[in-house]
Amino acid sequence: IYLRLLRDALPEWEILGWPDAAEAADAVTHVAAWGAPPGFFARFPHLQVVFNLGAGVDSLLQRDDLAASVRIVRLLDAGMAQQMTEYCLYGLLHYQRAMDIYRRQQQAEQWTPRDARRANNLRVSILGLGELGQRVAGDLSGMGYVVQGWSRRARQIEGVDCRHGEAGLDQLLMETDVLFCLLPATQDTRHLLDARRLALLPEGAAIINGGRGSLIDEDALLALLDGESLRFAMLDVFAVEPLPSGHPFWKHPRVIITPHVAADTVPADAVAQIAANLRKHAARLPMDGGVDRLLGY
Amino acid sequence: IYLRLLRDALPEWEILGWPDAAEAADAVTHVAAWGAPPGFFARFPHLQVVFNLGAGVDSLLQRDDLAASVRIVRLLDAGMAQQMTEYCLYGLLHYQRAMDIYRRQQQAEQWTPRDARRANNLRVSILGLGELGQRVAGDLSGMGYVVQGWSRRARQIEGVDCRHGEAGLDQLLMETDVLFCLLPATQDTRHLLDARRLALLPEGAAIINGGRGSLIDEDALLALLDGESLRFAMLDVFAVEPLPSGHPFWKHPRVIITPHVAADTVPADAVAQIAANLRKHAARLPMDGGVDRLLGY
Repeated sequence: IYLRLLRDALPEWEILGWPDAAEAADAVTHVAAWGAPPGFFARFPHLQVVFNLGAGVDSLLQRDDLAASVRIVRLLDAGMAQQMTEYCLYGLLHYQRAMDIYRRQQQAEQWTPRDARRANNLRVSILGLGELGQRVAGDLSGMGYVVQGWSRRARQIEGVDCRHGEAGLDQLLMETDVLFCLLPATQDTRHLLDARRLALLPEGAAIINGGRGSLIDEDALLALLDGESLRFAMLDVFAVEPLPSGHPFWKHPRVIITPHVAADTVPADAVAQIAANLRKHAARLPMDGGVDRLLGY
Repeated sequence: IYLRLLRDALPEWEILGWPDAAEAADAVTHVAAWGAPPGFFARFPHLQVVFNLGAGVDSLLQRDDLAASVRIVRLLDAGMAQQMTEYCLYGLLHYQRAMDIYRRQQQAEQWTPRDARRANNLRVSILGLGELGQRVAGDLSGMGYVVQGWSRRARQIEGVDCRHGEAGLDQLLMETDVLFCLLPATQDTRHLLDARRLALLPEGAAIINGGRGSLIDEDALLALLDGESLRFAMLDVFAVEPLPSGHPFWKHPRVIITPHVAADTVPADAVAQIAANLRKHAARLPMDGGVDRLLGY
């Protein structure tokens, strides 16, 4: 599908699919890819830009077949932000409307209404205020939730209580009912939510991870879920994907698992973004979504 | 809580709680109640108005202790519309983001991503375009869903494809992915969704009932769920409530049960509405939410 869409969007460029690109490897200057096999990029001696067909570039940055001179460009939004809001909102409503509790009651054939919790009485915290986090924060704030955000650098978003820095994070966690993890996987964010920080969450809070599995110390999370001090975790990403069979998350009554689908790339949006960036690059203009290899995003 | 709120809102009226009202039954002219025991209203000879502490007045209209001269007034919205939108949206996201399918996959330790369905590719139909239905229709339409509505009388709502009448209903059902039932319980709506009409829904559709249990022929619904031609039903209301133990809905893998909590009355909002109506009634102005006993709502 990408091949057809790219050709439609970029009639002035020659777009090659696989394996045609292998035949003409010398001529290839730009590659759009997701999950390319090891060594894949080494075959293109004149490679200038890799367009990542997703938002997270952590796996690209760990490769040894991409010279430092190759620019890496990630997708910004591309239909993913709307999906991330949907995913987060589902988890939030699951919490707010006590769907986890009603599910347990249903299994026990128990009819016990609970008072509904109102949006303006629910503290939602978003870790990571990039493209996706900002959109989720704005959407949820617009729906009346009390939204707090945290990012490495200071940010300002209307209607959102933004914090940053290490002390800001600890304080935020203590004042959170539902925590959304939307940070990228970098050296700085690895196990950002370790046992100490996870324990700062109030009794009965919930965690939703739509970012990267490396953000959370999974063993520490499991211990909190086993101890029932967290109501539930909704996890789309894991330290190892696919989640290995037999992993305790699979059968855990307080874990909702989705197979890395929170925010899928929408091909038409992705192609429009790549086409615009290709033209910018050809005109020596800066591209949108260019990755800083040191920062990792 | 209602007693205190009503006294605060209506300092010029004498507000009696129970059992004080029994002592002064002769003087009582207005009653605010929900689920009053049989014969309750007969003790007030000068009763003029009953304020129902909810939107649905079906049980009030079936009583034999309310003279035809007593006005029945129901709540309009009172915080219920926002809650109904939340409830419907949860069910809609459950469908759109395939949470029912991912739940089955989780039980089988199966990691199989599915393509996400976009809001503008999802046909949502709302039966009942009263206070709650209109709000849900407008909210979902604003979020990008394809929203269709059906009501007894013709209605116009911006962004919503409104239909009415019997033929309109059949056509609507054939073009529905997720069906919301938000109609009141009346003689006309009893088993409106019978076996024939339920069978008009496309393969793989879902039903969410936040209205009244009597709207749906529960046996016919069960047969469709057993045959797996419907993906799931999310039910907040039932022919008999609480849902009797041993009922096949309880353990059904395609049924989500909540105990009549989709749209709870918010006391502060309810009291403000009752206070405004009391003042209107005293001034001989028409009250908002006055019930037409023949129509049944």
